[in-house]
Amino acid sequence: MTQVVEIHDAAARSRIAEAVLRDLPDWFGIEASTRRYIEEAAMLPTFAVEPDLGFLCLKQHTPRAAEVYVMGVQREQHRRGIGRALVAEAECWCRARGIRYLQVKTLGPSRPDPGGYDETRAFYGAVGFVPLEELHGLWDEDNPTLILVKDVGPGFAVSPVEGLPELGEGDDLAALIAERTELADGDVVVVAQKAVSKVEGRVVTLANVEPSEQARELAGDAADPRRIQVILDEAVELVRVRPPLLIARTRHGYVCGSAGVDASNAPEPESVVLLPVDPDASAARLREELRERTGADVGVIVTDSFGRPWRAATTDVALGAAGVEVVRDLMGERDPTGYELHATRIAIADEIAGAAQLVFGKLDRVPVAVVRGLDVRGDGRGADIVIPAETDLFR
Amino acid sequence: MTQVVEIHDAAARSRIAEAVLRDLPDWFGIEASTRRYIEEAAMLPTFAVEPDLGFLCLKQHTPRAAEVYVMGVQREQHRRGIGRALVAEAECWCRARGIRYLQVKTLGPSRPDPGGYDETRAFYGAVGFVPLEELHGLWDEDNPTLILVKDVGPGFAVSPVEGLPELGEGDDLAALIAERTELADGDVVVVAQKAVSKVEGRVVTLANVEPSEQARELAGDAADPRRIQVILDEAVELVRVRPPLLIARTRHGYVCGSAGVDASNAPEPESVVLLPVDPDASAARLREELRERTGADVGVIVTDSFGRPWRAATTDVALGAAGVEVVRDLMGERDPTGYELHATRIAIADEIAGAAQLVFGKLDRVPVAVVRGLDVRGDGRGADIVIPAETDLFR
Repeated sequence: MTQVVEIHDAAARSRIAEAVLRDLPDWFGIEASTRRYIEEAAMLPTFAVEPDLGFLCLKQHTPRAAEVYVMGVQREQHRRGIGRALVAEAECWCRARGIRYLQVKTLGPSRPDPGGYDETRAFYGAVGFVPLEELHGLWDEDNPTLILVKDVGPGFAVSPVEGLPELGEGDDLAALIAERTELADGDVVVVAQKAVSKVEGRVVTLANVEPSEQARELAGDAADPRRIQVILDEAVELVRVRPPLLIARTRHGYVCGSAGVDASNAPEPESVVLLPVDPDASAARLREELRERTGADVGVIVTDSFGRPWRAATTDVALGAAGVEVVRDLMGERDPTGYELHATRIAIADEIAGAAQLVFGKLDRVPVAVVRGLDVRGDGRGADIVIPAETDLFR
Repeated sequence: MTQVVEIHDAAARSRIAEAVLRDLPDWFGIEASTRRYIEEAAMLPTFAVEPDLGFLCLKQHTPRAAEVYVMGVQREQHRRGIGRALVAEAECWCRARGIRYLQVKTLGPSRPDPGGYDETRAFYGAVGFVPLEELHGLWDEDNPTLILVKDVGPGFAVSPVEGLPELGEGDDLAALIAERTELADGDVVVVAQKAVSKVEGRVVTLANVEPSEQARELAGDAADPRRIQVILDEAVELVRVRPPLLIARTRHGYVCGSAGVDASNAPEPESVVLLPVDPDASAARLREELRERTGADVGVIVTDSFGRPWRAATTDVALGAAGVEVVRDLMGERDPTGYELHATRIAIADEIAGAAQLVFGKLDRVPVAVVRGLDVRGDGRGADIVIPAETDLFR
């Protein structure tokens, strides 16, 4: 990992600024302006990667906004994550001070500059800055100013991925997602089970199902015995039966209504959708495919809506996961009074699943959301949330 | 509700712009510049409140950024929510087109203008714009330009409220929250139960507890019998007992570990914190106090971390609620294939609680979060999520 340090000494700030900027004549070729940056750096919050590999100075303009006033990385050190690390550190500094927006100004695209500022703009785009406007009049007439901005507020954001088509077996879900959203390292892509099941072909046409005697009995007059048969095929145990409602344990160990078999949002009226065979494998596959298509190292969670004993209505929970923390274990850590939190384990992935559900459209088909700003990289699996039989108080 | 319409006809756009701007000589007193706005309005996406009460024109500068290029509300109609409604509609328009940031330029604060642009800046602040920088050189030398920006991306954001002190009985929680965050209408303030219980004095000092025989038996050697006694006092029914672990139904109807009695993060080592007596009332009270202090009409959810049968670890759920949708009922609505979603009820408030937990610090005391961007106003109560005994399959 690239180590970024904050430089507090004024002379050291100017020195490192000079060392780096002198190495970048294609960007900093006007002596007077370079001199000014070097002098101003002395008074500005400054971050650096030593020894003199790169630096970044911030200028705070208003209580809730700051600017990446000048930054540079030695020519030979480009494309090694130094700039990215400097910006990340600057964002932390801002967040800790209640700063919500970070801006940066650079040469506008109306004056193309291949290999120079064109690259600079691409860099800021890659770290999440969005071009706001090209302004004229701030700098001299040959140099239009592009102002870019990034929301660096604390906490996290959940956004729907909109415009996905109706999905079918064999569809390239990763490509469809990648086309509709810009993913960044550390994002978590949350996908409703049904989208995964459909592309994996986990759909059963009821016309092909022959219901057993048990299915016919359970169905009574209230349900389609063929649908009950599919549920029985998916279940390893019926946990509660109040026909036509069946709560079952699935092969994966999940306890849920209808063993996860669902007719709503099925591709056609006379079919039902099953849970994926292995939701963790589905998540891992999608993660790998997203990485191939976007270059971004994201986490993936595959979710479904489950009911719970004693509480009305459903919440979305994690069935499968890849690249994310699933259970956060605070066991043994101590709170500020010294009390040992001996049983605090948090089902992070279930909470992320629920958050994503809030932007899913049950009726208008938004089965994918992106969660950004949570530090939850890890290697948990959905299976980690299933309580083993021997410690299960409710078996 | 103020009705905002989009104006598609070029002549109508200019006409309404002229009607409103001519009524605002304090803001639009330079004829050439006013004329230009009126002409340009013809070509810009324009929203209006009729008859000629107010209008707003957008200009899109980049694929993901637009500007409130000009807006006005008739002098006599100020402070009636017209400007707010126009901005909200403009944000919807942006979101539907993938626009992430909305900016606005106005006169900078270095040229004070009481009753004129000072008011304008306050308005933009109240609708969520943040001052980015005062720029010089864009307009003439007498008129510095303040550029303000707002993230109008889709989905929602969850932010911790940081820096709260250790809480005690009688503390003014609403004031403490209001001092540390800027609330806006429609925000949901999520508060961990323990913060509410502490200010409500729901703390028991164990030295004052005399354990019963039953408490001593349940405690065995593994637990403090005084703590078990407090749990028994809070419980109406023990649902599962594996000493020293007790899962109990509380007076409110919640089923949870230790009847919600918790020693972690208690104010002092030899004390425990109980659930609020009436979490819905606590939420309603806090909501009212936040409205008094900030003017913002927010929702409030009071949460706690609950375990669930069959699933490892805890998720935060809603105990009490005010001003928010708690259960979203899709019963009877139809999905796109015509399948009736006959049993889809979503525990929105539990999902919001879980999302907030992701920014709560179990160890570093962040018991409050603000959720912004969810359209969940309503009048649900935490009690709505408790399943009535007669329909409970797990009783």
